[in-house]
Amino acid sequence: MKLFPENQDFDGPFPQLNRRLRLGIAGGGRIAATQAMAARMSDHWEVVAGALSSDPENAKARAAGFRIAPDRAYASFEEMAEGEARHPEGVDAVMITTPNHLHHAAAKAFLNAGIDVLCDKPLTNEMSEAEDLIGLAETSGCVFGVSYVMSCFPMIRQARQIVAEGGLGRINQIHVEFLQDWMTPDEVADAPHVKWRLDPSKTGKTSCVGDIGTHAAHLAQFVSGLTLTDLRAEFHVCGAPKPVEDTFFAWTRHTGEVPGTLMATRLAPGNRGGLRLRIFGSEGGIEWDLEKAEQLRFNRFGEADRIISRGHGHGVSPSVERLVRTARGFPEGIIEAWGNLYTEFAMAVVARKDGVGIPEGWLGLPTVAHGADGVRFIEATVRSNEAGGEWVRL
Amino acid sequence: MKLFPENQDFDGPFPQLNRRLRLGIAGGGRIAATQAMAARMSDHWEVVAGALSSDPENAKARAAGFRIAPDRAYASFEEMAEGEARHPEGVDAVMITTPNHLHHAAAKAFLNAGIDVLCDKPLTNEMSEAEDLIGLAETSGCVFGVSYVMSCFPMIRQARQIVAEGGLGRINQIHVEFLQDWMTPDEVADAPHVKWRLDPSKTGKTSCVGDIGTHAAHLAQFVSGLTLTDLRAEFHVCGAPKPVEDTFFAWTRHTGEVPGTLMATRLAPGNRGGLRLRIFGSEGGIEWDLEKAEQLRFNRFGEADRIISRGHGHGVSPSVERLVRTARGFPEGIIEAWGNLYTEFAMAVVARKDGVGIPEGWLGLPTVAHGADGVRFIEATVRSNEAGGEWVRL
Amino acid sequence: MKLFPENQDFDGPFPQLNRRLRLGIAGGGRIAATQAMAARMSDHWEVVAGALSSDPENAKARAAGFRIAPDRAYASFEEMAEGEARHPEGVDAVMITTPNHLHHAAAKAFLNAGIDVLCDKPLTNEMSEAEDLIGLAETSGCVFGVSYVMSCFPMIRQARQIVAEGGLGRINQIHVEFLQDWMTPDEVADAPHVKWRLDPSKTGKTSCVGDIGTHAAHLAQFVSGLTLTDLRAEFHVCGAPKPVEDTFFAWTRHTGEVPGTLMATRLAPGNRGGLRLRIFGSEGGIEWDLEKAEQLRFNRFGEADRIISRGHGHGVSPSVERLVRTARGFPEGIIEAWGNLYTEFAMAVVARKDGVGIPEGWLGLPTVAHGADGVRFIEATVRSNEAGGEWVRL
Amino acid sequence: MKLFPENQDFDGPFPQLNRRLRLGIAGGGRIAATQAMAARMSDHWEVVAGALSSDPENAKARAAGFRIAPDRAYASFEEMAEGEARHPEGVDAVMITTPNHLHHAAAKAFLNAGIDVLCDKPLTNEMSEAEDLIGLAETSGCVFGVSYVMSCFPMIRQARQIVAEGGLGRINQIHVEFLQDWMTPDEVADAPHVKWRLDPSKTGKTSCVGDIGTHAAHLAQFVSGLTLTDLRAEFHVCGAPKPVEDTFFAWTRHTGEVPGTLMATRLAPGNRGGLRLRIFGSEGGIEWDLEKAEQLRFNRFGEADRIISRGHGHGVSPSVERLVRTARGFPEGIIEAWGNLYTEFAMAVVARKDGVGIPEGWLGLPTVAHGADGVRFIEATVRSNEAGGEWVRL
Repeated sequence: MKLFPENQDFDGPFPQLNRRLRLGIAGGGRIAATQAMAARMSDHWEVVAGALSSDPENAKARAAGFRIAPDRAYASFEEMAEGEARHPEGVDAVMITTPNHLHHAAAKAFLNAGIDVLCDKPLTNEMSEAEDLIGLAETSGCVFGVSYVMSCFPMIRQARQIVAEGGLGRINQIHVEFLQDWMTPDEVADAPHVKWRLDPSKTGKTSCVGDIGTHAAHLAQFVSGLTLTDLRAEFHVCGAPKPVEDTFFAWTRHTGEVPGTLMATRLAPGNRGGLRLRIFGSEGGIEWDLEKAEQLRFNRFGEADRIISRGHGHGVSPSVERLVRTARGFPEGIIEAWGNLYTEFAMAVVARKDGVGIPEGWLGLPTVAHGADGVRFIEATVRSNEAGGEWVRL
Repeated sequence: MKLFPENQDFDGPFPQLNRRLRLGIAGGGRIAATQAMAARMSDHWEVVAGALSSDPENAKARAAGFRIAPDRAYASFEEMAEGEARHPEGVDAVMITTPNHLHHAAAKAFLNAGIDVLCDKPLTNEMSEAEDLIGLAETSGCVFGVSYVMSCFPMIRQARQIVAEGGLGRINQIHVEFLQDWMTPDEVADAPHVKWRLDPSKTGKTSCVGDIGTHAAHLAQFVSGLTLTDLRAEFHVCGAPKPVEDTFFAWTRHTGEVPGTLMATRLAPGNRGGLRLRIFGSEGGIEWDLEKAEQLRFNRFGEADRIISRGHGHGVSPSVERLVRTARGFPEGIIEAWGNLYTEFAMAVVARKDGVGIPEGWLGLPTVAHGADGVRFIEATVRSNEAGGEWVRL
Repeated sequence: MKLFPENQDFDGPFPQLNRRLRLGIAGGGRIAATQAMAARMSDHWEVVAGALSSDPENAKARAAGFRIAPDRAYASFEEMAEGEARHPEGVDAVMITTPNHLHHAAAKAFLNAGIDVLCDKPLTNEMSEAEDLIGLAETSGCVFGVSYVMSCFPMIRQARQIVAEGGLGRINQIHVEFLQDWMTPDEVADAPHVKWRLDPSKTGKTSCVGDIGTHAAHLAQFVSGLTLTDLRAEFHVCGAPKPVEDTFFAWTRHTGEVPGTLMATRLAPGNRGGLRLRIFGSEGGIEWDLEKAEQLRFNRFGEADRIISRGHGHGVSPSVERLVRTARGFPEGIIEAWGNLYTEFAMAVVARKDGVGIPEGWLGLPTVAHGADGVRFIEATVRSNEAGGEWVRL
Repeated sequence: MKLFPENQDFDGPFPQLNRRLRLGIAGGGRIAATQAMAARMSDHWEVVAGALSSDPENAKARAAGFRIAPDRAYASFEEMAEGEARHPEGVDAVMITTPNHLHHAAAKAFLNAGIDVLCDKPLTNEMSEAEDLIGLAETSGCVFGVSYVMSCFPMIRQARQIVAEGGLGRINQIHVEFLQDWMTPDEVADAPHVKWRLDPSKTGKTSCVGDIGTHAAHLAQFVSGLTLTDLRAEFHVCGAPKPVEDTFFAWTRHTGEVPGTLMATRLAPGNRGGLRLRIFGSEGGIEWDLEKAEQLRFNRFGEADRIISRGHGHGVSPSVERLVRTARGFPEGIIEAWGNLYTEFAMAVVARKDGVGIPEGWLGLPTVAHGADGVRFIEATVRSNEAGGEWVRL
């Protein structure tokens, strides 16, 4: 049994898995469409089933949008889990792209049916639910990925490798921010795809923290290799009144008392995908910006600045080249990062099912444990904010 | 019969076609892999057949790389055209991604079998062949797209619209260049995927002109709306000796005697996807760079500079939003541009087969006529260069 | 009596004052050299006297470096104040560029002698000294400028004007940071020009806050027009052990409870003049970066981004054009910003001496009051840091 | 006799000359004001005399704008040359900033009087005049600088050094362009400071070539070290009808048949100081842009891109640090580049007068020979354009 075919002389970006896996969708808004694009692009997945609405007719109509046959369009996660588990060509795995408050129930249903899961972040709205899922993942033996997609950009992997190799020396500071502007106008709060994000019964105790802050927190830890151990945070509602924060600031401590800052907002006109990571060490620094995701700034103190561009060679590590689809200068974007996530998810799924090993260092897929870390982060910001910005331990 | 399904409440980036079309591959190197990714991503295509080697065993092995079944892996275009034409679920269309000298034979085989074609540029190595294909496209009634993919970036469509709406006033100058660096080291000429590009029997009379110069020439005309009517060109071999040029410079005239420059090289260290278009008019200018494809600079004389970012609103025209997959700031890349090309190709194929109309302004797909323009451009540069850089008319 | 000559048909960037003023230097390291360059460039000043060392011989030698005659080279501020006050062509004003702990004594000596003063920031190391100087400025009637030079960049003035005109709507957030990297290597602490900056008896209770943080704090208030009212801060020593902080983070509140962040460090490899200001409002945002000081990003939500470039027209306000020396695209730098500071200082000095008025809106020169605000800011950060990062009111 | 004072412990950017030199101005519009600012900033010059108008009253009024005493304000170059030559404290040198057609007469008058000259480019409107000035410079023994100021940017000096040290390997291509936009509106041709630039009796046979094209041509040669030997050029009038070109394109050959392109225009909306130099070699490339003059891109094929920033260390060569005034990240601009030109001019003047030597490699000042090269370049473009764009030898 092997992970990849023998005679692969095709000069493609990724080794091909021996078969295309079957994917189901639990949820199904915009983000599901993006992920489905990426899954197809990766060539490791085929979307074949979905639970896209609790109304059976609507579920079928929406399923058609993903080219899912009507008999694979379910009106509940439970039905889907059950139906697919006994289907001779049932799904190998599902993506969970519901509003946050449904993640736990959906994941539970699929894990119980022995179906691997890739769940959107934040993993859950409650820490207890997150812990429950960790337990279920363990007992079921299923693969459980969490879609911290930002960690799948090749230049983020490059950054992680530079840090791991000591390219920055001792890490002194970690700064990360995620600025967007789409919530700037007051009226946007009423848009259908925004409404649930501002409703605490669905989005959880936070909106901005859970949605984009958690990306920032994960990225900082993923690249630095240093766990976020403590923080103090304050929440703000900068725009129209709303029951959850639209902006927050935090100070952080990572393993070894390394200090940092973290900030996110959706009311920063002129910023869209303003996710920016900066790590400064005793010998060098790195800077990365989602809006310029193809480049990584790497500065060794005392030398000229370096800009590493995604591609082959020219400063890109061989282990990162595995994630490269097009030549340097022919830009890739976030759908390709999603594609990397779906490739690594597929590798994990195949490895489990076929009992094969994955080469050392090939798998960067964030797991349910990282998802739980994210929930812990969110809860810590809430506790700190409620305590007037006191330090809290994660 | 309709182009798109009735009940499409799915909030995706593109209206979905009523069925997924079947795609074949004639050729099958790196560029085929990229196009296949994009075709799958677009969700309008499924790769089902291919002629990827003249050796039957190799053809099957390579087909496996595209998940093509062995019985749809052919060892010649003619076999494939014949086999697919009579297959009950034969391909709707083929992409032709062979070395240049085989484009004509391949396209001819498929057109004769009534199969729609999307052919790589340059269309052919000889003008006579290009004209032959124009004729065949007409008599067969088949759709014939040519893969000038750069014209499918949303911000290029935006640029074209700004020009068309008079945003630049009267056009005064058109400058375009395409700089790469991968041929800088002498030894690269011996790499397998490079060899044919330097062999005139395969690449044609030019290498750099036909491969990247023709992209530049198409883009300049696509955005400006002004035909390239005259040019003078000189060819250079800047790096290791080779039988074709690796660099060329041109002066151009577009409709109305509008002057311009055009240049391309593969020996410009530090440049990869250095395709840069600049159009200057009596009231404004636009600038676009493939390496920063998400932004379009638009300068109205007398005002602050404007930067339009791909996405929805914020200066993006509604007609361009149709090509947008992810939110502003969440970058797209060239695979998405390829995806746009495959979407428009699919629209054209469905429209032909199902006899439905395509909404005004929806189709930017370059056709066999644009392909022939490209061959005419290449031949003009050859003639001019041979005549010591004299002006020649296209 | 008029501020400017009648028959000024010379098409220069600045109206010329009727005479060149005489400038003295109290201090005299690198920063004095930069300021002297700028003062000469402005054409409103001539350096004629200095107290550059307490050793008489050394004082003369260093004076020669500024082309100061030996008989105008003094060995103490008091001597200089006295000597110049009774000199028939004594200095009109002095720049004070000593280490921080000497600012108060030097300023006092000159104010007492009726000599106008332009003092480096931070104004003093103690709030009581700052208040003393406010009193002395009032009783002496002298002009007292403080060298917050960043506020003299044309694009900063433009930013201030945009905010004042309501271009951002209601201000929601104010973020400012100043990142440098020169203190990254441990051994730099021993360099002669660095030593005093790490010695609390000279630099005061802070190093990074007083030196660069105070620039950031002034700029945020200067552009936003909103006073910094509260903050919480924490200090860090990121590099080699030292008795003062080399890094600090703060959260801020400005008039009307507008939240913000402020951060500065000298251990951010790859950053040099990383002073970056971002103000976000309900309708738009502005962003400015010292390393790209010629451009101002101005984003109106819902429109294409705008980049305003220093120069004449093209979005630059007429009131800002007064500070423009070279045409758009022919870059100016920080010496020109210093030149603007020296021009405005000269205008204030001439206005006082000759009893003439300065046109409304012409004078942006920071004063002793702004200097005292800076000391208050520094003291607040110290108090907050000592209290474990508690909120303190300025 | 020494060039610099003994006891210079002052830590300034430049060794100081033993005395401040006396400068005269022949001409006196905007560009004279800029140069006077720079000369003062350099601290090596004092403006003391001028011939700024042929009308005696106006000459005095304009002189006042430069703080020149009325008795040193002349109404002709000849008067000025004569008056200053016999003045006990007469000028050491003059800057010539008249319209082009007066350069020759002015320079001749001063050289004949033994006064050193720094003349604006283009040196003259006729080659014969340029040769005459070469002869006069030789016979008079005077210093004759020509103000190709772009060659005085530190990062241009760095680029030259990289090339000289072989950092690019064998040079393959040289591309340079100078794009501006201020002549875009038709009505600008009537502005007083523009009129003479479009009048062939004053500006010479070209306008855009002589004014900005010649900067581009000089820079390409200065950095590459390769003489421009041949070119073909075509002139365009892109905007309102005018008797001289506002745009031109050229192909070039440098020593060793190295090919290149050169282009300049004043009708490129969105470009102001768009002087961009790119040199590509067998091992690396460099790119520099006047609008980002503080950075030099240096790409070694196969490595990460490098960005060298003006300042001390971090990739800046010690020989270039001599031209650095402010720390990395605290931007310098073109007035500082002018300052460097005036420093090097002062060094040359002092060296001649005092018979001292200048250290090897310290003097980059362009001379009358470079000025004549510029005239030869202009004449070549005219000849080529008139011959329909034929190749002409310089």
